[in-house]
Amino acid sequence: MPAFTTTRRVEFADTDMAGIVHFANFFRYMEQAEHEFLRSVGLSVAMDQPDGSVIGWPRVSCSCSFDEPARFEDVLEIRVSVSRIGGKSVTYEIEFFRAGTRIASGRAKAACCRFGHGQPMASIEIPGDVRERLERGNE
Amino acid sequence: MPAFTTTRRVEFADTDMAGIVHFANFFRYMEQAEHEFLRSVGLSVAMDQPDGSVIGWPRVSCSCSFDEPARFEDVLEIRVSVSRIGGKSVTYEIEFFRAGTRIASGRAKAACCRFGHGQPMASIEIPGDVRERLERGNE
Amino acid sequence: MPAFTTTRRVEFADTDMAGIVHFANFFRYMEQAEHEFLRSVGLSVAMDQPDGSVIGWPRVSCSCSFDEPARFEDVLEIRVSVSRIGGKSVTYEIEFFRAGTRIASGRAKAACCRFGHGQPMASIEIPGDVRERLERGNE
Amino acid sequence: MPAFTTTRRVEFADTDMAGIVHFANFFRYMEQAEHEFLRSVGLSVAMDQPDGSVIGWPRVSCSCSFDEPARFEDVLEIRVSVSRIGGKSVTYEIEFFRAGTRIASGRAKAACCRFGHGQPMASIEIPGDVRERLERGNE
Repeated sequence: MPAFTTTRRVEFADTDMAGIVHFANFFRYMEQAEHEFLRSVGLSVAMDQPDGSVIGWPRVSCSCSFDEPARFEDVLEIRVSVSRIGGKSVTYEIEFFRAGTRIASGRAKAACCRFGHGQPMASIEIPGDVRERLERGNE
Repeated sequence: MPAFTTTRRVEFADTDMAGIVHFANFFRYMEQAEHEFLRSVGLSVAMDQPDGSVIGWPRVSCSCSFDEPARFEDVLEIRVSVSRIGGKSVTYEIEFFRAGTRIASGRAKAACCRFGHGQPMASIEIPGDVRERLERGNE
Repeated sequence: MPAFTTTRRVEFADTDMAGIVHFANFFRYMEQAEHEFLRSVGLSVAMDQPDGSVIGWPRVSCSCSFDEPARFEDVLEIRVSVSRIGGKSVTYEIEFFRAGTRIASGRAKAACCRFGHGQPMASIEIPGDVRERLERGNE
Repeated sequence: MPAFTTTRRVEFADTDMAGIVHFANFFRYMEQAEHEFLRSVGLSVAMDQPDGSVIGWPRVSCSCSFDEPARFEDVLEIRVSVSRIGGKSVTYEIEFFRAGTRIASGRAKAACCRFGHGQPMASIEIPGDVRERLERGNE
């Protein structure tokens, strides 16, 4: 199962006083890679609907394990694969590599939700055409 | 003209690999102090209106000069004073102190704007009751 | 087993275009609470040693589950408990509450490491006096 | 005087509850563009020296004016030009464009500083070879 791959250069503002990328930024990197994957299959994390509502993907849960630190100006390769498509959610596995060595890996689960005007966001079934695109990205 | 004062402890995530607070975080600190000032006079940066719109204060411009670095666990005193209330905007002077020494100072101008459903935000005259509260905070 | 508790008000800069706290910021909140816990037992995430090295606690892994979104100006109660003290690492359970309702919960594992001048950081056994303080914080 | 130009896509995490890029992130964008400029002329914001010290460029001051908001997935063109090279500092003008329209512009002044082991950072004269590269980048 091939994965979607993108790269990202570590910015100065991503580091902390330990001289390494602050761990919370790995979650931003994960999300950016997830969004690039979505765009690569014709989707977005914020999809305007004909009725004026927006379908989005808020985070249900996420985790990350850190094997080696990343440093300023490192170019990281980030691999995203869809590990599970449920009725109302999708789960991604994300891996971070530097020069071929895996330095971190994580998982992120996002719920398909509708955001309407002035209404609380509500979890919904993943629409058929969205599901097809996610599955295609996973082949 | 007395100013509103708040304090903030520097967090680990605010530092960078130079071992000091990353400069962009001073703008987050400024904003937090500005919002605390607004709350202190009964206002908010996001005020729900009876018609369902929201009055907010997007940034028009801001600046900061850095005299001394701030470090992890430093407790900063942040002083906010309203230096000018225009027809549609307000300008704040913000100063950062550590143990009585000023380490940075800046300025922030915010425009009074209405955010409506599905409409672009629009600059508006500062409503009378809001102006009164800003002026009171400035005495 | 009582836990250490702190509070934090959600800042505007912590929100995203979905109108809620961006999930990655929960990890910054977790870390801030962990550091406050460390200070409460006389420790720090960056402890200068007599030989000029620094003992720190880089993240080994972390996770978070999100039950309900947090919003601007929400005051969150964050509970930290030490769930395990290993030979070279400590694991925390962190829970987020708003008005008594748990809205998110996570786990964070940190390794005890020595940062020396110009040397790579190295994992070390948790020193005896540090261990005692962590255990005391856990009673 | 031609300027260095780079592009950046707005990330979800860069937005705030007003649906636009949080203003403080423009300063991170500025810095990233400045660092890309430095790399383009063979420099870096953190240059290891033979004696083990590091020459860096902490911020002296910066400012930004915001004409139009930037939104999620916008691709911004960022132009950096060196407006002044002083004895110990360099000043950049930075402009942000979206689809040919300038949406923000700012200025950043950075001091040339030496970071030594366990010593406070000290402002230094810009070394001759560094100055030459900055001037070349400005032609």
